[in-house]
Amino acid sequence: MKKQPFTTVGQTGRYRLLSQLNSKLRSSSTVFQHLVHGPGDDCAVLRMDGSSKFLLISSETYVEGADFDLVWHPLQHLGYKLVSAAVSDIYAMNGVPTSLTVNLAIPNKISVEMADTLYSGFIKAAEAYNVPVTGGDLTASSSGLVISITTIGEVEESSIVYRSGAGMNDAICVTGDLGAAYAGLKILLREKSMWQDTGGTQHFEPNLNDYEYVMRRQLVPQARNDLIETFSKLSMVPTSMIDISKNLLQDLMQLCTASGKGGRIYEAAIPVALETRAVADEFQDDVDQYALQGGEDYELLFTLPEKDVNRLVEHFKDFVVIGKIVPSNKGFSMQASSGDVLHFDTSQLE
Amino acid sequence: MKKQPFTTVGQTGRYRLLSQLNSKLRSSSTVFQHLVHGPGDDCAVLRMDGSSKFLLISSETYVEGADFDLVWHPLQHLGYKLVSAAVSDIYAMNGVPTSLTVNLAIPNKISVEMADTLYSGFIKAAEAYNVPVTGGDLTASSSGLVISITTIGEVEESSIVYRSGAGMNDAICVTGDLGAAYAGLKILLREKSMWQDTGGTQHFEPNLNDYEYVMRRQLVPQARNDLIETFSKLSMVPTSMIDISKNLLQDLMQLCTASGKGGRIYEAAIPVALETRAVADEFQDDVDQYALQGGEDYELLFTLPEKDVNRLVEHFKDFVVIGKIVPSNKGFSMQASSGDVLHFDTSQLE
Repeated sequence: MKKQPFTTVGQTGRYRLLSQLNSKLRSSSTVFQHLVHGPGDDCAVLRMDGSSKFLLISSETYVEGADFDLVWHPLQHLGYKLVSAAVSDIYAMNGVPTSLTVNLAIPNKISVEMADTLYSGFIKAAEAYNVPVTGGDLTASSSGLVISITTIGEVEESSIVYRSGAGMNDAICVTGDLGAAYAGLKILLREKSMWQDTGGTQHFEPNLNDYEYVMRRQLVPQARNDLIETFSKLSMVPTSMIDISKNLLQDLMQLCTASGKGGRIYEAAIPVALETRAVADEFQDDVDQYALQGGEDYELLFTLPEKDVNRLVEHFKDFVVIGKIVPSNKGFSMQASSGDVLHFDTSQLE
Repeated sequence: MKKQPFTTVGQTGRYRLLSQLNSKLRSSSTVFQHLVHGPGDDCAVLRMDGSSKFLLISSETYVEGADFDLVWHPLQHLGYKLVSAAVSDIYAMNGVPTSLTVNLAIPNKISVEMADTLYSGFIKAAEAYNVPVTGGDLTASSSGLVISITTIGEVEESSIVYRSGAGMNDAICVTGDLGAAYAGLKILLREKSMWQDTGGTQHFEPNLNDYEYVMRRQLVPQARNDLIETFSKLSMVPTSMIDISKNLLQDLMQLCTASGKGGRIYEAAIPVALETRAVADEFQDDVDQYALQGGEDYELLFTLPEKDVNRLVEHFKDFVVIGKIVPSNKGFSMQASSGDVLHFDTSQLE
């Protein structure tokens, strides 16, 4: 019997495998009558007959153990966080979410009361973002809890923003501050290991009061609908946008690569909260690594021509310029606070 | 420390838990501006600004071990089957699918080549139903393979069909034949146990040639777009519809309950293929149990006023009338071939 080839996903890498599968989809002979923009952005984009708006579709699956840990993630917060992550993909295309569909695969260890609590989290976030949860499916899981969330959104054809539109010399901008969610994760992992050292009793009370900001960023992150609402009010459309769900470095390289450009950022300009810095100091870590590679910030990374930066800053305070778009042959680099220039390689895309 | 209540999902039942969670969603204070029809049908229904069409959304998650078994389900067939199941939910609302989004959570044992084969199945089915796969997400799974599929579809407002519209004395109709997928499953489970008896070597060649029809119904079921196309051609709209994904008994009770009606069916009228009967005979099983409770048929169950039945039969041959809608106080019953009348209880809804 002929041996089948077996390449592990680790050997290929998640990013390359996804690209390969997406190419396969694009080369399929199906008539893509309604499809405006297929695989490879935060959302798929569909044209609706008779409507001036595009439909946005985003769908993600979260697996216990790989994507979340119920030991330290309260179920209500988990529900909230996953909805934030879901709507964030719609905002990243400059759209407005119109519906959420939630599927659960629940193992025996999850009670009816726990499912109810998780739903409370979905609903709380759905109310915050003003989008209905339209139901979904329940199925059994033989292992951990699996949660899939699909978000539908809409955007005027003239306002849609892709990853691929960054123009030469555009300012690279980011909302809020970065690395806080990762700082929160560091604290939670430390508390979890201390809890496990007590033998995993339920009576252990973690000391989390000193870390309220970073914990909140990790457990109940907010998606940046405020920026999208400002763009709409100002009739301003950024040239490109992506939400920082992986981390600044990965997501900026994705954006620049999709735009066929390079990027230059300044380490000193990357926004980091004092609370995040305090956690990094406590662990004797380099806080810039939290900001660059931490992940799960759900801030928006976008590019604007210089003139729009000045206009936006008058109406929206919570963003900074961290660099600018450069020709693709300049690659992707960061001027460190020391003055050294670090070059990054897009082969590091995960 | 106060003990938290812990009701298992088994105690409550999947159907009741889902109903309870859906009520919770409906009582949420979110403004359901776009939502036409929320939880509790095959799809959620959204209104799109400026379009005469409704948007249909359906999303399901499949977990290895609970929903499929890779020992006997070839990956390409699995991809095909899950797409059939996905589009079937859109057809059940009398709609046309316009996009599929696929999320995978893949464990280490799944190779790049296996993911590629699975995608080949998605694409083959997507081509058969003429709907693009618009991409999706890849994530790691610490246990089995998890596949989530979201389908978007559309339907004219005047043509949409819910579960809830069955009228008094309407004929209860079903496409194709029932129980074949379950017969295929019986064969596969037998072959799997024989394969395991050999110590699970790869050289075992199962004898499946005699069971081609039932195997095909189990492994690569077809969704009934042909019926939906006929309805469209005839400008005929059934009064209610559901796809038979669970099984005839469950899905008919769902439809009658949603319509506030009862149902009476005739055992002798339930369509069963000769091939299915042969398998039941081989196992010395009652073939009617396959048809009533087998599941995964992906046929369409629908109701029509008497006059439409006569008109439909002129243009579409592959359906039969199996009973009729009766008042809700008559409950739900089946006249067995023996002449006895069996009553079913909607508390048996799963």
